Amino acid sequence: MSGTIVLAVGGNALAPAGLGSNDEQEALARRVADIAVGMLDGDRRLLVVHGNGPQVGALALAQEAVSRELPPQPLFVLGAMTQGQIGFVLGKALGDALAEAERPHGVSALVTQVVVREDDPAFATPSKPIGPFFPEGRARRLADARGWDVAEDAGRGWRRVVASPRPVEIVEAPEVERLLAAHEVVIAAGGGGVPVVRGEGGLSGVEAVIDKDHSAALLGQLVGASELILLTGVERVALDFGTPAERDIDEMTVAEARSHLADGQFPAGSMGPKIQAAVDFVEATDGTAIVTSLEAATEALAGRSGTRVRP
Amino acid sequence: MSGTIVLAVGGNALAPAGLGSNDEQEALARRVADIAVGMLDGDRRLLVVHGNGPQVGALALAQEAVSRELPPQPLFVLGAMTQGQIGFVLGKALGDALAEAERPHGVSALVTQVVVREDDPAFATPSKPIGPFFPEGRARRLADARGWDVAEDAGRGWRRVVASPRPVEIVEAPEVERLLAAHEVVIAAGGGGVPVVRGEGGLSGVEAVIDKDHSAALLGQLVGASELILLTGVERVALDFGTPAERDIDEMTVAEARSHLADGQFPAGSMGPKIQAAVDFVEATDGTAIVTSLEAATEALAGRSGTRVRP
Repeated sequence: MSGTIVLAVGGNALAPAGLGSNDEQEALARRVADIAVGMLDGDRRLLVVHGNGPQVGALALAQEAVSRELPPQPLFVLGAMTQGQIGFVLGKALGDALAEAERPHGVSALVTQVVVREDDPAFATPSKPIGPFFPEGRARRLADARGWDVAEDAGRGWRRVVASPRPVEIVEAPEVERLLAAHEVVIAAGGGGVPVVRGEGGLSGVEAVIDKDHSAALLGQLVGASELILLTGVERVALDFGTPAERDIDEMTVAEARSHLADGQFPAGSMGPKIQAAVDFVEATDGTAIVTSLEAATEALAGRSGTRVRP
Repeated sequence: MSGTIVLAVGGNALAPAGLGSNDEQEALARRVADIAVGMLDGDRRLLVVHGNGPQVGALALAQEAVSRELPPQPLFVLGAMTQGQIGFVLGKALGDALAEAERPHGVSALVTQVVVREDDPAFATPSKPIGPFFPEGRARRLADARGWDVAEDAGRGWRRVVASPRPVEIVEAPEVERLLAAHEVVIAAGGGGVPVVRGEGGLSGVEAVIDKDHSAALLGQLVGASELILLTGVERVALDFGTPAERDIDEMTVAEARSHLADGQFPAGSMGPKIQAAVDFVEATDGTAIVTSLEAATEALAGRSGTRVRP
């Protein structure tokens, strides 16, 4: 087999609930790494894009606790920190798995900036909750003091909410492509990438969270990938989910996937962004996107599991 | 001019006292970036190695504050986080400075692991203080609970102390070399690198801090650099420092530098490691090492300032 596979892994697949110890995170990373390295058949190249939800949440919680002693850093800087953290843990796991499998690839984890549009409509309605829960009063005071938007989150308390704009450019895409061409296993756009906007003086970080599946789809397109694998909690995507008519999908054309999206089959908070990312990737590349679980990923790549979106 | 320059920048040059806001850190990074980009004359290549003292100290302080809610991550993971943080801030600054100077280089910040020996004698006498100050009682309890070594630090309180072993291998040196060959400006071995040891199952993180000047010297040697610039707080190194006989040095041979080191001219806590790193680099490469300040770096590279160590 040849071509580049992009594997998008959730932050939850790399950290247990409550973040857990580094040993637990390393064990999870090794499990992901073994499966990822198993995909490196023949001449294939591998690019891994990871999420960072639990990891960035932990950093936000820790820095709130010392906000009287140390100036809080912006969310985009916390995101950059998780690129270092997960890039190291996952990079080491991939290196160990490659060595054990006697594969000659090196591993590169690259700090990655992702450009979004300053006029992206998402900035008008920030709705992605991040970081710790607060009582309403404290949340409102923090909102005043720091210019945050805050909102009540599912009855559990108040949280900061930020925009989730669409990625339009991956600053380090040429570097990723160069490293892939040299048969490196590359980790990039971690946490969806550090969000930046282009201005007259250059790039500026912005307080936002970019969906890592969308960044994976865009980066895959920019480096000429042939396959995008979006990992999730289930082996296959279902239609009419939670109803008596619920049924798993093995394969959809892009047109079918678009139509199901328009019908509201895939909610915005869960499967929607993954199917949208899959559609965007397949339309741009004529490649294949697969939505499946980590456990089923190897079988799905061989065409025996998962939900495939094809041209 | 041609050849690769390694520029080693202290973490203090990238963060004000008390860490400061991200805006302050970005302004400092831009200052470093403008000077670094100014060195990219002709066909020169540039590799930047940064420290992380204030940044990793802030992370350690923040995570102590939430240690009842979240499992503390090891020091080497905090180090990896600072590679992401500083890699982003400094990488963005370098990208902006390159764009303004209309130079066509890309910038790559690479998560970097640095191998140390498990039997390095430094592990027997951990003495490098890191992280927050504690009252003696709390320090001793933390030492018991977490297996830390702790020590009294200069009358200001008790701190954790860790080993500072010598770097023996840079895991990502081939990737750094490949990116430099493609005329990328590369940021690597941040904070001296994430310290790891080699064992049967692969690499394992270790609780230690690697001197970034030593890592810069080793990485410079591995990628065939011709010049190593070690930034410090003064324009030139002095002999008989603090005595009536004090005098600045413009140039030393390796043999002279070794002899001054043996005479105790350069204390272990300040100029000693820099001169040792300079000596190691020049002996291994027949290149030149320069110890100088950020302000004088451009002049020093042109031979008009700084202290030069030559073969």
